[in-house]
Amino acid sequence: MAYLLRESIRCSSPARPRNHTNGAEFMLAKPHLARKGLLAMGLFNKDIKTFDDLLLHGLQDIYYAEQQIVKALPKLIEKATNRDLTKGLKDHLEETKNQITRLDQAFKKLGQSPKGIKCPAIDGLIEEGDEIAGEIGDKEVLDAAIVGAAQSVEHYEISRYGTLIAWAEALGHDDIVRFLTTNLNEEKAADKKLSTVALRKGVNRKAAS
Amino acid sequence: MAYLLRESIRCSSPARPRNHTNGAEFMLAKPHLARKGLLAMGLFNKDIKTFDDLLLHGLQDIYYAEQQIVKALPKLIEKATNRDLTKGLKDHLEETKNQITRLDQAFKKLGQSPKGIKCPAIDGLIEEGDEIAGEIGDKEVLDAAIVGAAQSVEHYEISRYGTLIAWAEALGHDDIVRFLTTNLNEEKAADKKLSTVALRKGVNRKAAS
Repeated sequence: MAYLLRESIRCSSPARPRNHTNGAEFMLAKPHLARKGLLAMGLFNKDIKTFDDLLLHGLQDIYYAEQQIVKALPKLIEKATNRDLTKGLKDHLEETKNQITRLDQAFKKLGQSPKGIKCPAIDGLIEEGDEIAGEIGDKEVLDAAIVGAAQSVEHYEISRYGTLIAWAEALGHDDIVRFLTTNLNEEKAADKKLSTVALRKGVNRKAAS
Repeated sequence: MAYLLRESIRCSSPARPRNHTNGAEFMLAKPHLARKGLLAMGLFNKDIKTFDDLLLHGLQDIYYAEQQIVKALPKLIEKATNRDLTKGLKDHLEETKNQITRLDQAFKKLGQSPKGIKCPAIDGLIEEGDEIAGEIGDKEVLDAAIVGAAQSVEHYEISRYGTLIAWAEALGHDDIVRFLTTNLNEEKAADKKLSTVALRKGVNRKAAS
């Protein structure tokens, strides 16, 4: 019961979303759940009640992630040595700023203020990249590690945007699908460029020599 | 300097790998770094000195990740309602156990004992999945969230196996490339199955209705 009744957790939005359903609205939307007696189990204490709430939560999650990436990329750029790698990371930093602008527009289309929520997944990914970079002295081995760390972040974003697009499509939010698809395509292209840098621009070969 | 001289960090291996180069071996392998005076900067205090060390660290990272996934999947299976989703997660739990066996074999090929190292990326991804699941009362919305959480973990693994395969290939470890490629292909297939469950088996449609 304590689990069901908790009011807030780290990965939750601190403020109730403006379009949050209240108890009565929810009961109308999901009468079968009321019949099952779930309401008596403290269901209304959970912050995410509808699929729209879940989509908004996902947008807030990726909004936070993109902002953390904008903070993290300059540190990786500073540590990287290979020219193609530093150029790729710099280009992606600029792309990421544009992605945040597109997310701003997606929030607006939903009638919401843009807001990020602190979530442990991107924090863990960035922390892991920082830690591994701090363990490596050899600059060529470090370049290879930076590519790997950056690609793990790219894949996180590819996964999140893919999920958000599927949710937005199911909910009929075609307008925000377009913004999210542009961001997804940029993340996929960034991931491919990093593979090229590792495999064809000499990063892995130099690290191995 | 404190940064360069620190002895251990969370994402580091507690014990020195058996094939770790010592100072003299490293100086022979990378004389240009010795000339640059980097040795005087505390380079030898860093745990990852060679590309082989980085590959071993990456294997220990994914070994820990797979073990955490074996612990996390039963909780998701318990929470999921959609039959195709629960079946997909159960199948992947069994696959994950086989993947750990393949990683055991990869460690052996490198002359190392299998060992995981606690790393924040997979911990954050699993924690985020737990948190979001705890926020959702509606079982159909919860199913959609579980698919998204599972796919973010799959993409982490796809990224990590892709990187490890590229590193192992560059180092000429063709024997472990085969084990890692089998695992990678299973992760990609699991990710596709989850997309099918969300898009064609009704998970997203039911969450939206």
